[in-house]
Amino acid sequence: MAKQPGRGFEGVALPTAYDVATRAGVSQSAVSRAFTEGASIAPATRQRILKAATELGYRPNNIARSLITRQSKTIGVVVGYLENQFYPQLLQALSYAFQAEGYRLLLFTNPPGGAPGGDEPVVEDMLNYRVDAVILASVMLSSHFADECRAAGIPVLLLNRKTDSPAVSSVTGDNEAGPRAIANYLLAMGHRRFGYVAGLESSSTSRDREAAFRAVLEPQGFQVVRAVGHYDFAAAKLATRALLASGQAPDAIFYANDHMALAGLEAARFEFGLVPGQDLSIVGFDNVGAAAWSSFDLTTYSQPIDRMVPIVVRAVLDQMANPQGEPVRAVVEGGLIIRGSSRGPKPRA
Amino acid sequence: MAKQPGRGFEGVALPTAYDVATRAGVSQSAVSRAFTEGASIAPATRQRILKAATELGYRPNNIARSLITRQSKTIGVVVGYLENQFYPQLLQALSYAFQAEGYRLLLFTNPPGGAPGGDEPVVEDMLNYRVDAVILASVMLSSHFADECRAAGIPVLLLNRKTDSPAVSSVTGDNEAGPRAIANYLLAMGHRRFGYVAGLESSSTSRDREAAFRAVLEPQGFQVVRAVGHYDFAAAKLATRALLASGQAPDAIFYANDHMALAGLEAARFEFGLVPGQDLSIVGFDNVGAAAWSSFDLTTYSQPIDRMVPIVVRAVLDQMANPQGEPVRAVVEGGLIIRGSSRGPKPRA
Repeated sequence: MAKQPGRGFEGVALPTAYDVATRAGVSQSAVSRAFTEGASIAPATRQRILKAATELGYRPNNIARSLITRQSKTIGVVVGYLENQFYPQLLQALSYAFQAEGYRLLLFTNPPGGAPGGDEPVVEDMLNYRVDAVILASVMLSSHFADECRAAGIPVLLLNRKTDSPAVSSVTGDNEAGPRAIANYLLAMGHRRFGYVAGLESSSTSRDREAAFRAVLEPQGFQVVRAVGHYDFAAAKLATRALLASGQAPDAIFYANDHMALAGLEAARFEFGLVPGQDLSIVGFDNVGAAAWSSFDLTTYSQPIDRMVPIVVRAVLDQMANPQGEPVRAVVEGGLIIRGSSRGPKPRA
Repeated sequence: MAKQPGRGFEGVALPTAYDVATRAGVSQSAVSRAFTEGASIAPATRQRILKAATELGYRPNNIARSLITRQSKTIGVVVGYLENQFYPQLLQALSYAFQAEGYRLLLFTNPPGGAPGGDEPVVEDMLNYRVDAVILASVMLSSHFADECRAAGIPVLLLNRKTDSPAVSSVTGDNEAGPRAIANYLLAMGHRRFGYVAGLESSSTSRDREAAFRAVLEPQGFQVVRAVGHYDFAAAKLATRALLASGQAPDAIFYANDHMALAGLEAARFEFGLVPGQDLSIVGFDNVGAAAWSSFDLTTYSQPIDRMVPIVVRAVLDQMANPQGEPVRAVVEGGLIIRGSSRGPKPRA
């Protein structure tokens, strides 16, 4: 590195580390260490440098630092949508956890209706921002995206989705044990006519949950009627309407997530005059905050954000430190939470 | 600027704009223009440059560019919490709108319970990231933060909050006309015993809404009993319980936002066996998505995100372009939305 980059970079006359080093009578490397957490430097030297920095108005910045360390200290997060309460809860937990590690989230959202060409514009944009890693929450991974990130050496982690490629890290809830527990519970409560409301058909999560639900019921001779809710509140209402108005209306409906199950509760109660928990059982997946509200009292299988997020953070940091390391494919166990929207027995209040 | 920074910056051997310029036989300035949207450059020259860039694996990046243009193309957004559905809706709308202008949101969230020392650690951190502007959504502006940002030349905009300082831009809903419309409507519906559930006592928004509500009722001789819900679901339930269990229980309660009003509906209905819209009226503020759900059917005054966000974007871009320009102090009108949680007359379905 040139020892004196000077202050002339495209005419920007901000004070540089060189200016601070000169004023404090130390090396530039000492200035760098003074502003790096955990770096080795004598307290007195550090004080002298901070004083010189304050006098000059010098501010070490992550951007300049990122050219040196090739770290921007940002994690790009792509979220499909924030309407489903699970994602704001997840985003907030991720933000706290990464902040504690010195990283901030750079938010990428797909515009309503999806970007033309899928995620592609987002990829280019993320690479331009030099994010240190990418987390895709409830977004499909295109092979183009995966290739570009691999070429750029940027770790990618799928959250609440997975791909067939064993090279890509993913953290999901238990989309196998959860739906199985729900199916067995509904059978035990005497249900015999089952429905499933799918999310997006392209979503691995929705497909996995449906397959596990069917894997319990179909070998025992039970049919599962289905409708598609696209993870959308209004569409889930329509799907519920279609199931309940059909000749073979189910009396137990499992929704691919809570957000759609809340819509299902509304449709059953206000459009069909049914009492959930008596006339039919409605079950979701996630355990979002509103599932516990008295208005819904929704039986569900939890995706424990508080246990998923530390695994995500650890996996991302590990991959940044060691890009050749093993990918993480974590499945985080949840639990069946029985509430009033399904036929008893209910836990005592 | 040195014409040949070379490729030796701290040993990082990434191809530079200089390498691309040499290979394509053009000036560095032409390379820069080739990668800048809307910049003037002959199509054939641009093609030659893009070819050279591809061959070298050169990628223009916002980080290096930010050292030149002093723009990071990021907007720092501080959100207090995402539990209240209004904020995810707002965040998503801001993200779409700023993406369309070539900016991304860098997310800063206060940890649960608030940062020790308030917002201060966040300030330092934001400045280190060289954000181009700061939006504070439902977060108080400390004078330290305002001073630091002013010194750094970073525009600050308060969203859903305002300060007494006329120098700081703010965009809010109509915290004057809204509560007045609610008070007049409740009077017209025959209510005589009023309650107000405040948000955080330190919040200008909650104070403004309460003052405007009282300004209609008190001159006419009506008392307003109050409780504090801290913008929190559980606390708003407690506040509702305190109001309804008191000797002078109100029969019309106005909540500083919908998030708390939903909690109030739950408490009135499930703890007191009251039927909102018959036994008492419950009114919120915001018009979040869930307010329209049949389970709540909440009367409210809207904060129109779709009209607020373009004003925010325009104000932020204008201030970045002209830091000496007039601050924007926008109040965005909403409307009273009468639903089933308050005593009729209801609009016909």
